[in-house]
Amino acid sequence: MRIVVLAGGIGGARFLRGLKQAVGPEADITVIGNTGDDIHLFGLKVCPDLDTVMYTLGGGIHEEQGWGRSDESFAVKEELKAYGVGPEWFGLGDRDFATHIVRTQMLGAGYPLSAVTEALCDRWQPGVRLLPMSDDRVETHVLINQDGEKKAVHFQEFWVKLHATVPAEAIIPVGAESAAPAPGVLEAIAAADVIILPPSNPVVSVGTILAVPGIRAAVAKAAAPVVGLSPIIGGAPVRGMADKVLAAVGVETSAAGVALHYGGRAAGPDGTAGTGLLDGWLVDTSDAAAVAGVESAGIVCRAVPLWMTDVDTSAEMARAALALAEEVRRA
Amino acid sequence: MRIVVLAGGIGGARFLRGLKQAVGPEADITVIGNTGDDIHLFGLKVCPDLDTVMYTLGGGIHEEQGWGRSDESFAVKEELKAYGVGPEWFGLGDRDFATHIVRTQMLGAGYPLSAVTEALCDRWQPGVRLLPMSDDRVETHVLINQDGEKKAVHFQEFWVKLHATVPAEAIIPVGAESAAPAPGVLEAIAAADVIILPPSNPVVSVGTILAVPGIRAAVAKAAAPVVGLSPIIGGAPVRGMADKVLAAVGVETSAAGVALHYGGRAAGPDGTAGTGLLDGWLVDTSDAAAVAGVESAGIVCRAVPLWMTDVDTSAEMARAALALAEEVRRA
Repeated sequence: MRIVVLAGGIGGARFLRGLKQAVGPEADITVIGNTGDDIHLFGLKVCPDLDTVMYTLGGGIHEEQGWGRSDESFAVKEELKAYGVGPEWFGLGDRDFATHIVRTQMLGAGYPLSAVTEALCDRWQPGVRLLPMSDDRVETHVLINQDGEKKAVHFQEFWVKLHATVPAEAIIPVGAESAAPAPGVLEAIAAADVIILPPSNPVVSVGTILAVPGIRAAVAKAAAPVVGLSPIIGGAPVRGMADKVLAAVGVETSAAGVALHYGGRAAGPDGTAGTGLLDGWLVDTSDAAAVAGVESAGIVCRAVPLWMTDVDTSAEMARAALALAEEVRRA
Repeated sequence: MRIVVLAGGIGGARFLRGLKQAVGPEADITVIGNTGDDIHLFGLKVCPDLDTVMYTLGGGIHEEQGWGRSDESFAVKEELKAYGVGPEWFGLGDRDFATHIVRTQMLGAGYPLSAVTEALCDRWQPGVRLLPMSDDRVETHVLINQDGEKKAVHFQEFWVKLHATVPAEAIIPVGAESAAPAPGVLEAIAAADVIILPPSNPVVSVGTILAVPGIRAAVAKAAAPVVGLSPIIGGAPVRGMADKVLAAVGVETSAAGVALHYGGRAAGPDGTAGTGLLDGWLVDTSDAAAVAGVESAGIVCRAVPLWMTDVDTSAEMARAALALAEEVRRA
């Protein structure tokens, strides 16, 4: 079974770990990773979401933190601070630095990001095919309103430095409109047996991937069923600050709100046009009341436990997503 | 008193520490540092000699080793090895990596090496003005004869990887002929009250500096006395493998051999033309027998202890060099 997952960072990575357990080693999983939160720091190219997926699936992740390396040290960071070189708010550890050094060296030598990612994965053996959404540079910027002054800042500055505490008025995937899907991305979507939108941020993770010209259309017309899992439970993000960026794009922070944001592929009984992406949607059991509203938009919806407390619960969610895919495939 | 020193790595740095102690904080010391052993590793620009001087004078050097940082760790190196990215033979520590990251980022932003070096020294406060010999890229390569096959390798490969165990047939400062002295280099030489060639490698350290067009001529015509200290004691290098590279340029590994290699500025009583650089030369007391030969080439020569066992002995050597400079100035 060929499974394609459009993934962001922590939520996507943890779901993928469950998915791998659920389907076993024989499944063929392609991950299309968000690169919109990539950032150049200290002259090095940092790809937080790709690395979070790679480290999580490869056994190198800092488990409690959810990002960065286990058994990490911070000598380089300490020295950079002694040199007065910032930013200090992005916490790169020594082991993590090595990844960025290798990546930057390869990019400098002319390899595209997809080839670099493959080379890095050659060490980590994540058990999935990890593709960046694009080899072209896309950087998500956030239009913020800080004390009455509007300015666009890099997503990481909004997210990591400002902790999303200032209002976001717009999310701008700079460069997306002229980016091309990385080699293999459209082919994987077209050949997929199942396409999954994991509980990643629908705006700055999955939304950015979909902003690369060609990817949204490929998902919309894919032969495979498309199912998603809500990153919102009970009106709040499971993790992170998705509500802040949902507000910026005018989407209600609710399990149904995100489903309707993605939209359904089939025309809904309520007359919804069916120009969206989803065949199926999973909400948490606590959001069971949202099922009817989602289904009225032509999206088959089920309520199952969506807390990824460990690999087993994540695997159970993955099984529910695959079961829903079979259900909507038959429909 | 304005003192100019043409320095390589460990020997030059240790001499400079003694010189600083000898002259006190009021003296104005400009160091023209060798950059011929610079190397790009992992996409980063590494300047071993500049860093050795900076760390030694700034209190960050690994004392026993003579190069690299004190209190060093090797997480980045370990990770690079796990990625299969080499070379492994050049041991960069985590703290040292930060220096190269800052340097590479600044160079990438368009700053010349001299400005970058000044910025790095802003942290280390070495108490001297440290100038790279040139802002242009010069890389010393060594023509080696390895098992009958001749090939040119980077100096660091010859020195650090091969430990100078294969015959060196020529020393080639690649790029030197089109390099220009860094801003301030020629001005410092012209304005100097004393010019010192410390016990650095006469071929791959001082020799490379002198290979940058304009520098040798500036030293030769400088108003200040030029005095040097032998890096060879009793027919062997005090440190390192200078004999290997002296052989490659056809110079005898002896205190007198190096003096004659530099040459005297005055015409010698033996009829030597006086097209060289030295007014004075210090040999170790154990090489006192060499004094007459050096002096016959028009170079005033004195025998004093030349083992830099600690800062005090290095300071004593510096005082001897300054005294010799006064002697030849009066002459």
